[in-house]
Amino acid sequence: MESGAICVHSNMVEDKENVANGEQVSKKGAKKLAKAAKKAEQKAETATAIAANNAAGDSAEDSALGRYGLSEMIQSKDKRSERNFVAVHELSSHLEKGLLWVRGRVHTSRSKGKQCFLILRQQSSTVQCILAVGDIISKQMVKFAGNIPKESIIDIQAKPVSVPNKIESCTEQTLELCVEQIFVISQAKAQLPLQIEDASRPENADDDGLNIRVNQDTRLDNRVLDLRTPANQAIFRLEAGVCRLFRDILTEQGFTEIHTPKIISAASEGGANVFTVSYFKDSAYLAQSPQLYKQMAIAADFDKVYTVGAVFRAEDSNTHRHLTEFVGLDLEMAFKYHYHEVLHTIGNTFTAIFKGLRDNYSREIESVGQQYKVDAFKFLEPPLILQFSEGVAMLREAGVETGDEEDLSTPNEKLLGRLVKAKYDTDFYILDKFPLAIRPFYTMPDPSNSTYSNSYDMFMRGEEILSGAQRIHDPEYLIERAKHHGIDTTKIAAYIESFRYGCPPHAGGGIGMERVVMLYLGLDNIRKTSMFPRDPKRLTP
Amino acid sequence: MESGAICVHSNMVEDKENVANGEQVSKKGAKKLAKAAKKAEQKAETATAIAANNAAGDSAEDSALGRYGLSEMIQSKDKRSERNFVAVHELSSHLEKGLLWVRGRVHTSRSKGKQCFLILRQQSSTVQCILAVGDIISKQMVKFAGNIPKESIIDIQAKPVSVPNKIESCTEQTLELCVEQIFVISQAKAQLPLQIEDASRPENADDDGLNIRVNQDTRLDNRVLDLRTPANQAIFRLEAGVCRLFRDILTEQGFTEIHTPKIISAASEGGANVFTVSYFKDSAYLAQSPQLYKQMAIAADFDKVYTVGAVFRAEDSNTHRHLTEFVGLDLEMAFKYHYHEVLHTIGNTFTAIFKGLRDNYSREIESVGQQYKVDAFKFLEPPLILQFSEGVAMLREAGVETGDEEDLSTPNEKLLGRLVKAKYDTDFYILDKFPLAIRPFYTMPDPSNSTYSNSYDMFMRGEEILSGAQRIHDPEYLIERAKHHGIDTTKIAAYIESFRYGCPPHAGGGIGMERVVMLYLGLDNIRKTSMFPRDPKRLTP
Repeated sequence: MESGAICVHSNMVEDKENVANGEQVSKKGAKKLAKAAKKAEQKAETATAIAANNAAGDSAEDSALGRYGLSEMIQSKDKRSERNFVAVHELSSHLEKGLLWVRGRVHTSRSKGKQCFLILRQQSSTVQCILAVGDIISKQMVKFAGNIPKESIIDIQAKPVSVPNKIESCTEQTLELCVEQIFVISQAKAQLPLQIEDASRPENADDDGLNIRVNQDTRLDNRVLDLRTPANQAIFRLEAGVCRLFRDILTEQGFTEIHTPKIISAASEGGANVFTVSYFKDSAYLAQSPQLYKQMAIAADFDKVYTVGAVFRAEDSNTHRHLTEFVGLDLEMAFKYHYHEVLHTIGNTFTAIFKGLRDNYSREIESVGQQYKVDAFKFLEPPLILQFSEGVAMLREAGVETGDEEDLSTPNEKLLGRLVKAKYDTDFYILDKFPLAIRPFYTMPDPSNSTYSNSYDMFMRGEEILSGAQRIHDPEYLIERAKHHGIDTTKIAAYIESFRYGCPPHAGGGIGMERVVMLYLGLDNIRKTSMFPRDPKRLTP
Repeated sequence: MESGAICVHSNMVEDKENVANGEQVSKKGAKKLAKAAKKAEQKAETATAIAANNAAGDSAEDSALGRYGLSEMIQSKDKRSERNFVAVHELSSHLEKGLLWVRGRVHTSRSKGKQCFLILRQQSSTVQCILAVGDIISKQMVKFAGNIPKESIIDIQAKPVSVPNKIESCTEQTLELCVEQIFVISQAKAQLPLQIEDASRPENADDDGLNIRVNQDTRLDNRVLDLRTPANQAIFRLEAGVCRLFRDILTEQGFTEIHTPKIISAASEGGANVFTVSYFKDSAYLAQSPQLYKQMAIAADFDKVYTVGAVFRAEDSNTHRHLTEFVGLDLEMAFKYHYHEVLHTIGNTFTAIFKGLRDNYSREIESVGQQYKVDAFKFLEPPLILQFSEGVAMLREAGVETGDEEDLSTPNEKLLGRLVKAKYDTDFYILDKFPLAIRPFYTMPDPSNSTYSNSYDMFMRGEEILSGAQRIHDPEYLIERAKHHGIDTTKIAAYIESFRYGCPPHAGGGIGMERVVMLYLGLDNIRKTSMFPRDPKRLTP
C-alpha cells in the first residue's frame, strides 16, 4: 500500500445528502457552517452520523464535520435508496465516474501525518483507500479514520482513481479510493482474538518462524473471524459448489432428491458408534447413514434418489479426517442387470464434479492456493477402475504384506493411492470387488467368486471418500446373509420387510462432503472444510 | 382395460437370446425342442429363467418354455446390454418398431380363459399388457402371468400395438403391449398390507362408503407401498422441485449454501422443546433452528447464505401441521439500510417458487389432484404485504376481538387468510411489523413505533410458513434486549460475542419445507408431505 498516489479533489462533488443538509463546506466560514450543520444534523430525522469524539476543542474547527463519524445503529429507519453501493471487485468499471459508496471492513488502517491509508476488505476483495487533509478532509477526520478498529464495518463515499504503480497488497491493484465521507456502521472490538493477517498467512512462507501463526483451536474458537480469511471464503464457496454440482448432475440424470429422518428408532448399523437421543418418554438414535431410507425410496419406485444431509457417528476418533457430524452426499439407484450401471454413474458424477470445480471455481482454488500448498487435482476420463485384487497385487509388489481378504489399512490406502498416482497419473480411482468378509451383511456377494462382493470404494488422493455396493434386494437371501453374520434378524425385521413387496436390484453409495473438499484441495485436516466442525472434543461454537 | 384388442403375432421375431439358446419354437416338435431348450438353459451360464412350477405334467407340453418364469436373483452376473429397455411413458414413440423390453410392476393381472390382461406400472405410468394363447404363448404361460402377485417387478419383452378404443384405466391409453416373454425379477408377497388401488382412490369419490379407504397409520406403517401411489410419486417429486427452486433462485442472486451443525452445546431458543443427545461423556442438544449459525456466517462475511437441513422440535404437538423433525429452508442476508431489502428478496423467492411449480410441475399437480381436491394456488406479483395492524383491523372488522399486541391464534390466522383471499385473491401474503412483545429477544424493534418490531411472517392458505426478522446486530443493544426479556446473558455469551467483531445489519427467515408443499397443494396433513414423518407418536419406519 501507500504507493505514493495522491488524491486530487479538484472536482469536488457534493452528494445529494450533503446538499440536502445544507452543508456547503469551504475553508472560509467552516466554523460557522460546521456549527449550523451539526445543529441541522441533530434535528434531521434521517441523520445517521454521530460526530466522532475527537480531542477537546478540535471539533469547533473541524471543516469535515458531518462527513465522518459513528453511524447510529441501522434499525431500518429509512431506505437511503439514493446511495449507489458498488462492490469492490467491480470498482474498476467505475473509474472516473465520480463518487460512489462502498461498504466493507477496515482490513488495516494507519494515519501518518496528514494522510490516512486504509485497506477496505469486502469478502476476498481488498482496495486501498486514502484520506488526505485538504478542502474536504480535515485533520480530525484523518485521525478518526486512522483509529477505526480493524474489522469494523464502514461505509465510505469515495472516488475511484487510477494509480500509476500497482498496489501489491490489494486485490484491486490498479486503483485506489479517494474518500470523502466515512462512517462506522458496526464497530469491532479494539482487541481481536486473532488477526486476519496472521490467519491468512501462507503456510509455506519462509519467515524463519518470526511471524505469528494461528493454531487450529484458536481459529475454531473464533470461527467468525477465522472464516473471513480469503482461503476460508474460498473453501466454503467451493464447498457450496460441490453440493450444487452433485445435485445438478444427478438431477440432470433423472434422480429425485429425498429427505430422510435423522431421528430413528433403531441403530442403523448394529448399535455401535451411535448417539442416543431422549425422545419424549422414550429413547431414539441419530442416523449414521440414510441408507435404509434410500433403499426404501427405491423399493417405493423412486428409481434414482439422492439426499444431502447430516450424518452422525459417535466414534471417538480424533484424527485429521473424522468428524462426529458431517454432511453426507448419498445416492441410490435401481439398475437393470449389473451394478456397474450404478458404479459408472457414480464415477462419472465425480468426473463431472471435478470438471465443474476446475472450470467454475478456479478463482477459489487459486485463493486457497495462496495460503495452502495445493497441487492441481488430477483425474482420468472415464475414471480408473481397479479390482481390489489388483490393488493388493500392487501393494505386494511394493513390499507390503497383506491378505487377500484383509481390509486396506489407512497407511496401505495411502500407499496404494501413491502407487496408483505414479502408475496412472490420477488422484481419483475406483476400487471394485472388495472381499465379501469385510463388508456389511447386506452387500451382494460376487456371483462368480464367493470371496468377493459387488462392492466398491472410491478414493481421492489415497483416502476413501465413498463406500458403496449392490445391496441384497431379496428378503430371503438377506436373512441368510444376516444369519451368516450372526445378526439377530428380529432386530432388522422392518428392514427386511421393505423388500417383500417387490424391489428392483439396486446399488448406491455415500460420500463424505467435507472429505471431498479437503482432498480435492489437498488440505490436511477435515476441520478446514467443516464450517462449524464437531468432533469428540468440540461442540462449539 | 380389456378393450377387446387382440394381439396378432403374424410377424414373430425371435430375439437374439432365444436364437442363442437354440430355441426355434413351433407347434410341431415343441415337446422335443422344449426338452432340449430346458437342458441348454440349465447349462447356459447366462440363463436367468427358472421354469415356472406349473401343474404337474403340463411342462412337457409347454411350447413357451424358456419364455417365462421366475428370474434368478439379479446378482450382476452379466450386463445383458442387448436388451433395449423402454420407459412406459415413451412407448408411444416405439409403435410398430418391433419387440422391446419393459421393466415394471404388476399393477393388476387377470387371466381369463386363453388370455391374460395385465397392467404394468412404472412409477406413475401404466400400460395394458396382453398374453393370448397362440404360436408364442402357451396356456401355461397365460396361467403363470395371471398368477404373478401384484406389485412384483417383472421384465417383459413385447410389441407395442395401437388399440382402436382408448384404454381408460391406463395412462397409456392408445396402445397396449403384446407380450412374448415375461420374467419375474422380484416377487411380492401374495398378501399386501394395503392395495395400491385403495391407497390411490380419489378422496371425493362418490362411492357410498363401499370402497376401502386406507387410513393414515396403515399408509405410514407401510410407507414403501403407500409411496407408490401416483399422488405420492407426484408429491415427493414436487417437493424435490421446491428445494431445487429455492436453491437455484437464491444461488442466482449470489447466496452461498452453508451447512450448520445439528448437534449443539446449548439449546438454541431457551431450552424448551429441545431434544437432548448423549455426547460421549457429556450432553448436547439437537438444533431447533440454524439461526445462530446463519448469523455467524453473515458476521463472517458470507453476505447472503441459505441452508437446507433437518430441524428438530421436541414439541408434544399432535396436530395436522407439526412434526418433531422437518426440513428447514433457511436464509439470512446482510442488508444496507432497511430490512425490507431482505423481506422483498424472500417474498420474490416465494413468487419465483410458485411460478416454477406452476410451470414445471403441472403434471405432478394434476396427479395429486386426481386423488385429492386441489385448488390452484393463487399468488400476486409482487406479493401482497400487509402491516400486522392492518391484519388486526381486518379481523376486528370481521367481528373478532383481538388485542394490538396479541399474537395471531391459529383460528385467527386461518380466518385472516380467508379474509385476505376474499379481498385480494391471493393464497400468499406477508404480514409485516409484528408486535415487539411477542417476538424473540433478538428481534430488532421498530425505530418509529416501539410497540412493533422489524419482523414478519409469511402465509400460505392462511397458515404460517415463514417467520423472520431483522436481528439485532449490535452486541450492547442485544444485551439490553435480552435483559429486558429476563434472559441470563451469561448463557448466551457466545451468541453475543459473535457480533463484537463487526457485523452488518441483517435479516432472514426459516421456512418449513413440508408445510410449503402441503399448503401449495392444499393437502390437509403434513404427514402427506414428509416421506418418513416423525411426530411424538411416530418414529418408524
